[in-house]
Amino acid sequence: MQILILGAAGMVGRKLTERLVADGHLGGRAIARLVLHDVVEPQRPDTPFSVETLTSDFSIPGEAEKLVAGRPDVIFHLAAIVSGEAEADLDKGYRINLDGTRFLFDAIRLVGDGYQPRVVFTSSIAVFGAPFPDAIGDEFFLTPLTSYGAQKAMGELLLADYSRRGFFDGIGIRLPTICVRPGKPNKAASGFFSSIIREPLNGQEVVLPVPVDVRHSHASPRSAVNFLMHAATLDTAEIGPRRNMTMPSVSVTVAEQIEALRRVAGERYVARIHHELDPYIMRIVEGWPRRFDARRAESLGFRAEQSFDEIINIYIEDELGGALAH
Amino acid sequence: MQILILGAAGMVGRKLTERLVADGHLGGRAIARLVLHDVVEPQRPDTPFSVETLTSDFSIPGEAEKLVAGRPDVIFHLAAIVSGEAEADLDKGYRINLDGTRFLFDAIRLVGDGYQPRVVFTSSIAVFGAPFPDAIGDEFFLTPLTSYGAQKAMGELLLADYSRRGFFDGIGIRLPTICVRPGKPNKAASGFFSSIIREPLNGQEVVLPVPVDVRHSHASPRSAVNFLMHAATLDTAEIGPRRNMTMPSVSVTVAEQIEALRRVAGERYVARIHHELDPYIMRIVEGWPRRFDARRAESLGFRAEQSFDEIINIYIEDELGGALAH
Repeated sequence: MQILILGAAGMVGRKLTERLVADGHLGGRAIARLVLHDVVEPQRPDTPFSVETLTSDFSIPGEAEKLVAGRPDVIFHLAAIVSGEAEADLDKGYRINLDGTRFLFDAIRLVGDGYQPRVVFTSSIAVFGAPFPDAIGDEFFLTPLTSYGAQKAMGELLLADYSRRGFFDGIGIRLPTICVRPGKPNKAASGFFSSIIREPLNGQEVVLPVPVDVRHSHASPRSAVNFLMHAATLDTAEIGPRRNMTMPSVSVTVAEQIEALRRVAGERYVARIHHELDPYIMRIVEGWPRRFDARRAESLGFRAEQSFDEIINIYIEDELGGALAH
Repeated sequence: MQILILGAAGMVGRKLTERLVADGHLGGRAIARLVLHDVVEPQRPDTPFSVETLTSDFSIPGEAEKLVAGRPDVIFHLAAIVSGEAEADLDKGYRINLDGTRFLFDAIRLVGDGYQPRVVFTSSIAVFGAPFPDAIGDEFFLTPLTSYGAQKAMGELLLADYSRRGFFDGIGIRLPTICVRPGKPNKAASGFFSSIIREPLNGQEVVLPVPVDVRHSHASPRSAVNFLMHAATLDTAEIGPRRNMTMPSVSVTVAEQIEALRRVAGERYVARIHHELDPYIMRIVEGWPRRFDARRAESLGFRAEQSFDEIINIYIEDELGGALAH
């Protein structure tokens, strides 16, 4: 089988690539060819099967056609302008996140000739906007409060409509906050959810900018890849026309995150967290969802971690070689 | 003040025009200029103020800019490819209903210079798709089962995002089925809701293609105009970022519609309704919403009829000169 990944150079794209290369198959079928696409050159992995890396802006008319010309069986569409940039540059955000997605979907449609790939689209919990119920259920409406969230919600609608019409077999998965993100701290307002765990485990001090009673929902990078793999292989006959769904996650307060760090790593690591409230970040975080009731995804077999301890242990296993060094 | 109506040649557009001409003002401000736009030439009413009629396809790049160049204070965006045609011609539906709407919104945005008109966008209950709760509440999610519904839902998201960003002051109103539609019977699957009232009142026989226990929600054409007028003038400070809402309506079964006809007009009129089930129409209607709990719109002062009797009486007043002739 052939697989195409758009957004292959991003964190989740790289981890998905690693997993596909390690497995060598998807849904019981051997991978014959993997095409990795991004606007920057994706890393080319060593594989026993054919790998191609492609670099282009898929929002330029005609580019998406090239990506699907080889008729990939599964297309992972992870490409996006992230929230902060989509808010700062309106035209760019709509161009990549809406037009790019539409060009891709239309390119698939226009292949015709019975071509009907599985399309896995990463949406986001940014499709939801406050005020929320205590737990956001599967039938709660989409009222995004960022242009990024609006673009993702529009992509969801297009995916559902094109799937209903039989142009492809699409699934949109709303990823929760991915935690613990590997790598360097970034400027994202949500960055502290990862950095208060990652920096202490790497021997560094870190600032927590919000009160410890802030509640949020998380899944590990490993779960994000599991969601994608499951979405690529599950039987869509069970899904019907409602093609977009919130993924499972672990809902914890920051205090519970810190308690988990204490249990998994120890007091010495917790002592590296310094509490300095930042009213700007506090205000942003106030508008974010706290908890999801993702029973539809769960009933379809999507699985996240059961506890934040597990999320920390996955970071230690996958990023630190399984042991604490600091 | 200046007013622009897109879709002015349609049934609701014509009635809105009549109302604005009769009132001569909107929200306490005298109308100085009215621009009527459609893809076919709108009728030019006799008015004491300036009226311009424009004919163009607003989904052609550059056309929307011309419409907003005069900086209208209020823009009614009623232009759309209807459900059946948007389903039959995918490209045309997305071009008019999505691209056209986006071109219009972007044209407004790019005027800049503090220009921030009120934009009233007619959405539709087609943004909802079965299965439904008994009554669809204000926070129920949008899962359209037609391309038309998907396009309207995408327009809603764009309207909310652009309003949040301050490019204009938008309100999206989801119209229920408008009943009793004046004029000739049409081929729309929903046509019988109007024709079982209209044809008997006009001395004609009519076929009812569904069982009498079918339930649906209605508002009169007069209410549709009232919704638009209220949306154009209400204080949006009360609304916040959730800019789209379902309008109030009267939920009745077909049996209740017929009982209302009996009360308002008499048995002689009811006898003109012939029951002949049409499995094709029955199947379509099964996927339609039956009832809405539109309390948000009601709390903002939107008002529909209280009974189906009232809806029939409005048809008799507005279309038959207030008296039954047949």
